Amino acid sequence: MNIQTNERYKQIKPAYLFSEIGSRVRTYEQNNPEAKIIRMGIGDVTLPLPEVVTASMIKACEEMGHKETFRGYPPEYGYGFLRESISTHYADNNVSVDPDSVFVSDGAKSDLGNIVDILGQNRILIPDPVYPVYVDSNIMSGNNITFTNGTKENGFLPLPDAVSPEDQRASVIYLCSPNNPTGAVYDRNGLTLWVEYALKTGSLIIFDSAYEAFIADDDLPHSIYEIPGAKECAIEICSFSKFAGFTGVRCGWTVIPDNLKSGTYDLQALWKRRQATKFNGVSYPVQRAAQAALSDEGIKACLSNINYYRENARIITDLLDEKNIFYTGGKNSPYVWMECPGKTGSWDFFDLLLHKINVVGTPGEGFGMNGEGYFRLTAFGSRENTIEAAARLKDFL
Amino acid sequence: MNIQTNERYKQIKPAYLFSEIGSRVRTYEQNNPEAKIIRMGIGDVTLPLPEVVTASMIKACEEMGHKETFRGYPPEYGYGFLRESISTHYADNNVSVDPDSVFVSDGAKSDLGNIVDILGQNRILIPDPVYPVYVDSNIMSGNNITFTNGTKENGFLPLPDAVSPEDQRASVIYLCSPNNPTGAVYDRNGLTLWVEYALKTGSLIIFDSAYEAFIADDDLPHSIYEIPGAKECAIEICSFSKFAGFTGVRCGWTVIPDNLKSGTYDLQALWKRRQATKFNGVSYPVQRAAQAALSDEGIKACLSNINYYRENARIITDLLDEKNIFYTGGKNSPYVWMECPGKTGSWDFFDLLLHKINVVGTPGEGFGMNGEGYFRLTAFGSRENTIEAAARLKDFL
Repeated sequence: MNIQTNERYKQIKPAYLFSEIGSRVRTYEQNNPEAKIIRMGIGDVTLPLPEVVTASMIKACEEMGHKETFRGYPPEYGYGFLRESISTHYADNNVSVDPDSVFVSDGAKSDLGNIVDILGQNRILIPDPVYPVYVDSNIMSGNNITFTNGTKENGFLPLPDAVSPEDQRASVIYLCSPNNPTGAVYDRNGLTLWVEYALKTGSLIIFDSAYEAFIADDDLPHSIYEIPGAKECAIEICSFSKFAGFTGVRCGWTVIPDNLKSGTYDLQALWKRRQATKFNGVSYPVQRAAQAALSDEGIKACLSNINYYRENARIITDLLDEKNIFYTGGKNSPYVWMECPGKTGSWDFFDLLLHKINVVGTPGEGFGMNGEGYFRLTAFGSRENTIEAAARLKDFL
Repeated sequence: MNIQTNERYKQIKPAYLFSEIGSRVRTYEQNNPEAKIIRMGIGDVTLPLPEVVTASMIKACEEMGHKETFRGYPPEYGYGFLRESISTHYADNNVSVDPDSVFVSDGAKSDLGNIVDILGQNRILIPDPVYPVYVDSNIMSGNNITFTNGTKENGFLPLPDAVSPEDQRASVIYLCSPNNPTGAVYDRNGLTLWVEYALKTGSLIIFDSAYEAFIADDDLPHSIYEIPGAKECAIEICSFSKFAGFTGVRCGWTVIPDNLKSGTYDLQALWKRRQATKFNGVSYPVQRAAQAALSDEGIKACLSNINYYRENARIITDLLDEKNIFYTGGKNSPYVWMECPGKTGSWDFFDLLLHKINVVGTPGEGFGMNGEGYFRLTAFGSRENTIEAAARLKDFL
């Protein structure tokens, strides 16, 4: 063939981070079939869905099997019942979000990847280290990325003063809090500085709150919309994956406030058009499952699972405290972001842990330049595996 | 805000076709709450899912509720069991498709919209009339569209001779067979001409076979890969929506052969990268449902539903035959594409049918310039409604 392909794909690292990890682990497993590998790499949940959730999903499947209750194409932006439930969930946390501003999708990753579609060429501000999807999706669209550096000094929470003071252009600003991979969480003051910066410069904030349910400290914001002015400058993308263990169920949502305009362009209208053209809504049983997760009983069950993971995180951070190793995250996040001892490179540390103690984590370098020398461990394993991993780490570190 | 948005969205008609229809119908309903409206507009199925499908989906939901059988993130390209089932389904129809070339998604519409992501700027050949997603997604990406005209004369099946003979550039060629909206189906000869044209010009064919299960004539091709050479020039996008009634379940797939290269670019590798970056796979219960639809029992049940719709189509085409009205489709498609009597415009005919006999169809003009003067009726209604609609049409036409 002789057609033009998207040349910008060439600029992306050849393998997606987790594919590369998967491939190294598979190779090790093939050579060491007896090894008892503990996976603390991918941020994937392991506890089963709460009964209230599966019951609701099963009921919806049954409805699909009967003529009277069968449902065809779902509404492109989500069923009213789910958009309402999400809005109510915000309201329960004292945040006002109109159901019509909530767009249900098959997951935050899809929305984070697809949101670039409705934007033109802008300077993109992305924290480093961070979830690789922001960077890769913007490279695929030919955007110019400027990194805001997360460092030990700023606790991996860069603020607007990280952007050159001479260059206060309108930008698209990605924020992830609680951060993936560092587990660091912006406080109200930090987010206020970003919202004020966005309003001053005419910027758009894309706020990834996929891990908000892990926040344990009462005074940390769960949503960007807790900050005054955010509805004039911010889109929020969230997920049922971590809150309700939906990584295999697939459901998320995006909030685009209805007064979010750039010049004459209405971002909500653009997103509606994008979704109506390139998406056909989320599976009906999945939406019923998500609704059940947001019921009183569902929330209780989901938070109980989250507490289980929190205890895992505590087991890891207790060990790091004991070993006097610097880390962020853990308390308000399923991720523990540790400094690799002895200035080891992060992929070297990955190989060391895999080969020496059969523990798989995620090399910090995979999340950006500033991740070099750091390592991410997740709290999503079983209690037993987490205790075992901590024991192996205790001997090794 | 002062950021740049995707300016090309401005070039798209303000409302997506089916949203516009929905809005006109809602307005009519509000003013005429007693009207018994029969919907033959959107191509949405109405029969419930076969029991073998819901049983499999329910079993998968139950698995998600137990620690031992819970599943987190699905593989980005689909579970092996489903990619294998799809490959086997092709093999049963004497088409060889490697499971590793099958990419499972949440629906053909998503894939058709997203495939543009991996391509650069090309001339785009799109039949007119056709499903609006091809046009809109290419406008959103700033591509130059050339239409190949479907007309009464060519039976709404344009061939390569519709392209200017002086301009035999490499292009991206969209084909939809059985066609949405016209129900016309390319025969082996027609598809062979397109494959030869693509190979000669270095073009890529994007073949939308979402309606293949409706083909009743034995000698009509279900897949582009039945044509020699197609694996060197064609991507095929298909869906469970029409075959298995999955419009509300959401599952489809894309086949990208592993030898599909443009220069040094490997289209399968590009798509893998796109999906790994901007997509997180399909819900596990949905994939189990799709697998069940492809079991022997599933196929039998799905084809029985399709036969039900076929009989509906026959009721409509019998009436049009009786009234001596030109149409395409019906026999090998759930769509009947009729000429509006008396040279009525297609939106006028839409309003006429809605207001005079409370039957909703789709105005041909919504599918492109050549659709003006035509009207699409779908066979997806109940038998009762189809008979009633035919009776109303009989009196009206």
